[in-house]
Amino acid sequence: MDSIQLSKKLGGSASRRQAETFSASRGGKIEIKSKQKLTKKSLPILYTPGVAEVSMAIAKNKKLSFEYTIRKNTVAIVSDGSAVLGLGNLGPEAALPVMEGKALLFKELAGVDAFPIVLATQDTEEIIKIVKAIAPTFGGINLEDISAPRCFEIEERLEKELDIPVFHDDQHGTAIVVLAGLINALKVVKKNARKIKLVISGAGAAGVAIAKLLIKYGVCNIILVDRQGIIFQERTGGLNKSKMKIARLTNPENIKGTLAEALRGADVFIGVSAPNLLKKEDILKMNRRPIIFAMANPISEIMPEEARKGGAAVIATGRSDYPNQLNNVLAFPGVFRGVLDNNIKQVTDMHKLKAAQAIASLIKNPSSDKIISEALDPAAVKAVSKVFKK
Amino acid sequence: MDSIQLSKKLGGSASRRQAETFSASRGGKIEIKSKQKLTKKSLPILYTPGVAEVSMAIAKNKKLSFEYTIRKNTVAIVSDGSAVLGLGNLGPEAALPVMEGKALLFKELAGVDAFPIVLATQDTEEIIKIVKAIAPTFGGINLEDISAPRCFEIEERLEKELDIPVFHDDQHGTAIVVLAGLINALKVVKKNARKIKLVISGAGAAGVAIAKLLIKYGVCNIILVDRQGIIFQERTGGLNKSKMKIARLTNPENIKGTLAEALRGADVFIGVSAPNLLKKEDILKMNRRPIIFAMANPISEIMPEEARKGGAAVIATGRSDYPNQLNNVLAFPGVFRGVLDNNIKQVTDMHKLKAAQAIASLIKNPSSDKIISEALDPAAVKAVSKVFKK
Repeated sequence: MDSIQLSKKLGGSASRRQAETFSASRGGKIEIKSKQKLTKKSLPILYTPGVAEVSMAIAKNKKLSFEYTIRKNTVAIVSDGSAVLGLGNLGPEAALPVMEGKALLFKELAGVDAFPIVLATQDTEEIIKIVKAIAPTFGGINLEDISAPRCFEIEERLEKELDIPVFHDDQHGTAIVVLAGLINALKVVKKNARKIKLVISGAGAAGVAIAKLLIKYGVCNIILVDRQGIIFQERTGGLNKSKMKIARLTNPENIKGTLAEALRGADVFIGVSAPNLLKKEDILKMNRRPIIFAMANPISEIMPEEARKGGAAVIATGRSDYPNQLNNVLAFPGVFRGVLDNNIKQVTDMHKLKAAQAIASLIKNPSSDKIISEALDPAAVKAVSKVFKK
Repeated sequence: MDSIQLSKKLGGSASRRQAETFSASRGGKIEIKSKQKLTKKSLPILYTPGVAEVSMAIAKNKKLSFEYTIRKNTVAIVSDGSAVLGLGNLGPEAALPVMEGKALLFKELAGVDAFPIVLATQDTEEIIKIVKAIAPTFGGINLEDISAPRCFEIEERLEKELDIPVFHDDQHGTAIVVLAGLINALKVVKKNARKIKLVISGAGAAGVAIAKLLIKYGVCNIILVDRQGIIFQERTGGLNKSKMKIARLTNPENIKGTLAEALRGADVFIGVSAPNLLKKEDILKMNRRPIIFAMANPISEIMPEEARKGGAAVIATGRSDYPNQLNNVLAFPGVFRGVLDNNIKQVTDMHKLKAAQAIASLIKNPSSDKIISEALDPAAVKAVSKVFKK
């Protein structure tokens, strides 16, 4: 089917990019490749009977599986399709193209072999059981597009119960890149992280993980806001376990109210929430030289032009068509390159902080329009993976 | 580490081939490769935001996942490591090198992308649950090296409960190739399948599947023998569910006794059992011009030289260093090439019979030393995959 036919099939509304996207996805975006040449002579080395030697050696010492199998360089990208991009619960089949794209990035940017595993269950205990069961195939687990709050328990339990690293990219990849951007944005506006008031819109996987990492970095006054407004400890509605926990760690002045009220006098807005919920009037109420990270995807919380009208001093988004794109791709390839190469069993907060600093330091002289590297900057993988050297 | 160091590490006894095998296995024998080039321009097509279009289309119509994701050409090779080659229960990590080798053969011979999934559980229900859960990633499931009788229930249940084809290669791949070899061997000795007496040594996954397929082909008098001797319906010891079932379908004269007793007057011996359990004296008791398939791996039930002394007219093994190697690799790549290309949801007995005939027909004039193609004969994939054309 060519682009035009495809356009018609899609209802005539398909743009050229849509057609290109479908065309690039046809049959999948990744493939398996042999690293060895198959000949009559190599067959007994690559398969039976020779392979029995390797199997017996690994049976005696399981650690050898990290040397003599794909585990050495292979990561599972596991998703249950419950939170696909910003689109919601689309299910595993619909998550697969995203995971393939991610696998492609892993290989092209960091040489990591990543394979998508999309799951036909959204039950927390079942997901934990399944990932534990398939783990002997892999050297690491990248959790992806699993909705909050289940993602927190799944990650925490797997980290405890597996002997390979587990990394939920929607949480930590996002948190690392946001912190990297913030470090440089604060340089631009000449403010101190310990003294700022920072508002996060969105208390899902990304919002909570950003808050936790920024606290570790030293940001003292963080306010989280969800659909029901500011999160505070005594709030009675809509606080799941993870939000109750984060309520205890944030909002030191225990303020209440709406997003607009949270932003009064704030220095930083970080949006990982929904399109168009920030107005320029809200920004006008913030402290002088406000920083606006509007990362909702594909449509931001506020468009950069509008944020500028509100007086924003530094603006970043998740979009590639504006300056300062905050994209996880700056973090996850290097994180897994680092853990695989250095036999790291757990990605710690210290690794995440150092990774953010490493990404930030790629920009020598941060300016309003340049707080972060281009998404595909090859220097990012090197800088981030170095963090894991022992 | 070079070969010599490796040799020493392995205790000084390692042969050159051992060293070559370890060297070829280092870091795994397969890798993931991008099918599309990653550039600043292609990024929004291969990943966000473009990929969202594909995800939304699949969310509306899950069948599109067979067109616009890796499902179109990707198979899982699933093993729990409970019956690794002929080596026994070595566990999932030790099974991985075998599954990688298999994945390599899938790609090199048939262009099928196959990915190993080795499981840290040997519980039948858990395996069924896990394979069902990961199925949305794949277009087919190749079960491998799972011990009998669990393998029968796992395959049967998955076939019923999944909408993608499930194929246990140790059963059906072996059965197809054995039948192909038998068709030609019978031509050589000028005997009729309906009139022969055939003994199968080994009543595990392969033995039972061979018996079932040969019955479908028209062999009427089949005797199965396990470690406790001939299988007959009233036998009280060591009959699990699958052996009880096969007892009802075989041994029409209800004979009892040892393997040697079973072989008296038999026309064909098929061994999928253990090394060195057939003596030339046993063959001398068989019918004139006996056929001997001694397929135990890596050491056959009887060595070809010895079988010849017993008067065997046609001898085949699983080994590459003798003529007539009966190797599953003649079947499984073509089977999956066929099911994927033709959107087949189940591999039926009719497919298996036709596949065996297709492989047999590759040998135009069968002779004692040439009843089957070379293991890597590219014609086999074409011949077998054609069987699945609708």
